Amino acid sequence: MSEVDETLFAVERLKEYSKRVFEHFGVGESESTEASEILSSADLRGIDSHGIARLHAYAVMLESGRINPRPEIRIVRETLGTATVDGDNGLGLVVGPWSNRLAMDKAAEVGTGWGAVRGSNHYGIAGYYVMEALERDQLGWAMTNTTKIVAPLWGAERMLGTNPIAIAFPGFEEPPIVIDMASSAAAFGKIEMAIRKGESIPEGWAIDAHGQPTTDPTEMADGGAMLPLGSTREAGGHKGYCLGAMIDILSGVLSGANWGPFTPIFTTDFEVPPREVGIGLGHLFGAMRIDAFIEPDEFKRQVDEWIRTFRNTKPAPGTAGPIIPGDPEREAEAERRETGIPLVAAVIADLQDISRRTGVAFD
Amino acid sequence: MSEVDETLFAVERLKEYSKRVFEHFGVGESESTEASEILSSADLRGIDSHGIARLHAYAVMLESGRINPRPEIRIVRETLGTATVDGDNGLGLVVGPWSNRLAMDKAAEVGTGWGAVRGSNHYGIAGYYVMEALERDQLGWAMTNTTKIVAPLWGAERMLGTNPIAIAFPGFEEPPIVIDMASSAAAFGKIEMAIRKGESIPEGWAIDAHGQPTTDPTEMADGGAMLPLGSTREAGGHKGYCLGAMIDILSGVLSGANWGPFTPIFTTDFEVPPREVGIGLGHLFGAMRIDAFIEPDEFKRQVDEWIRTFRNTKPAPGTAGPIIPGDPEREAEAERRETGIPLVAAVIADLQDISRRTGVAFD
Repeated sequence: MSEVDETLFAVERLKEYSKRVFEHFGVGESESTEASEILSSADLRGIDSHGIARLHAYAVMLESGRINPRPEIRIVRETLGTATVDGDNGLGLVVGPWSNRLAMDKAAEVGTGWGAVRGSNHYGIAGYYVMEALERDQLGWAMTNTTKIVAPLWGAERMLGTNPIAIAFPGFEEPPIVIDMASSAAAFGKIEMAIRKGESIPEGWAIDAHGQPTTDPTEMADGGAMLPLGSTREAGGHKGYCLGAMIDILSGVLSGANWGPFTPIFTTDFEVPPREVGIGLGHLFGAMRIDAFIEPDEFKRQVDEWIRTFRNTKPAPGTAGPIIPGDPEREAEAERRETGIPLVAAVIADLQDISRRTGVAFD
Repeated sequence: MSEVDETLFAVERLKEYSKRVFEHFGVGESESTEASEILSSADLRGIDSHGIARLHAYAVMLESGRINPRPEIRIVRETLGTATVDGDNGLGLVVGPWSNRLAMDKAAEVGTGWGAVRGSNHYGIAGYYVMEALERDQLGWAMTNTTKIVAPLWGAERMLGTNPIAIAFPGFEEPPIVIDMASSAAAFGKIEMAIRKGESIPEGWAIDAHGQPTTDPTEMADGGAMLPLGSTREAGGHKGYCLGAMIDILSGVLSGANWGPFTPIFTTDFEVPPREVGIGLGHLFGAMRIDAFIEPDEFKRQVDEWIRTFRNTKPAPGTAGPIIPGDPEREAEAERRETGIPLVAAVIADLQDISRRTGVAFD
């Protein structure tokens, strides 16, 4: 990966630690278990930015009273196939799974279920939620808006989050196709990791505070912005902006949450938005029962054939050919379950800082 | 636009012509009216590649018996919130509106409705369908797979279509936000128009038959492929590939249609796929009643504020600042309703060829 020193930690140890930290702040036991499960899922799958590396941000938000450890999550509007949920300012890692289950329960009844969520906070990797749906032979959708960090095409300031979308499709013999992607050219976590590792970033990812392109991640962090997928007008940056806008409006506006530049901060390192236009952070969860559309076994066998067909694509010069969405994460998981989760020194220091603040042992 | 000669035609004249051509091939009167309405909608909105310029392809497909002018469209599987539709190999311009209405009718009942469609053909601009939903205070979703033309990231051959996704959000005082985007770096229509106009294409759009990057649209057309949104791994080409794959599986596999490289041709200029893995072309339509989630007026007022906030973004150097998705198309429509639809000589020649083949006057 890089020349930076990394230390390996067993996933169970990190999971147990984050669970205890959540419990320390008053989060219920089963909720703490599921929240730490979501973080571990990110660590195992190689999404380093969204795993234990983010525990410090959650801890600081809980410590400062910015997140409610014991939310009373409630449905504020409902039809047979839909619901709007108010997360009562709970952890996204708690409100998210609750709302995702609601969408899946509705799909079990009427074929498809959709839950728009307000009053939530950062919910971890979107991919976690859609993999839950696979257990129920459903197609899960997950979207969320996030703290502003991305400029719209032709903009010179942060207006949108990296707003991810995720969806997963089960195979019969093949492992599932799992799509989980930010609508920015790169995930913000990659900027954070580049800064931690002292590396530069590729062109097309970011602009500086003056709106000029930059490859220095600290210039982006210091008042600059990330760019939407596509980066420039010629290369389709308007499409990445459209995707980010779509996810922002579906997650934020439809649920009555904040949106765009008013989306709440996920860590106290960021400036609090000047005003609120809704309630907390927003998500959208969707679920579709496969058998509402087609025989599930038939669907899965076709997905197998889809996977095999795309693996057999003629490779581009200098490459080993296309991979299937979810391949790298599954390979990371297989390796990391054996060897452990590699953490850089800055993340370990963060975990030690949490330990000092909370008294929860990290050894 | 360019140095190429263009002639202006009144939209009503083009609409009447395409309606008569559809009727000539046996398409019913109301179906022909709606089909020509969809083509005119593309012409008015400036999506030149998807309007009357595509009538020749539809005509040839009807003439050669590849499309059924009088389909018996039927629901093959159904729940309260979902349906799978078989379009009986009808025009996509006929099967699409039928299935889109079904999704909206289901949303009226249970809050949200989703229709997966197989046995269809090219359905025009995805944006048309989601604008229909606005009339019913619903959020419409439309996706479709299309004839293979795009290489997956790290691939050197055509495996996916340009697979578009569309969605629209109504404002209260502001015009709606209308998103309608291909999942490729550029729409294939832009390659066609570049060839017609003798122009080159930007880097990042296409590869040649050997999988090498090219800026010559004829090299792309001559056995090359287009690239997914993001173009390269560093710039996020894996995300464009994921988006194209998602739309392909939701449109093709979920409905029991063909998918990926097996998706049917939309004009006889393309090679017929070696085998079938499903029935015809596939779409996915979705509809969400706004009032199933939030008061519609509240939603629309927030969309107004979203639009005004994003219009006020600090502009990037050398630009006039961000625009709102749907702006260029609405501006084109306002102008073209007045001045007419500009057609290049190659398109006019195509229309004259249809006239010779059918006897329908084009004067």
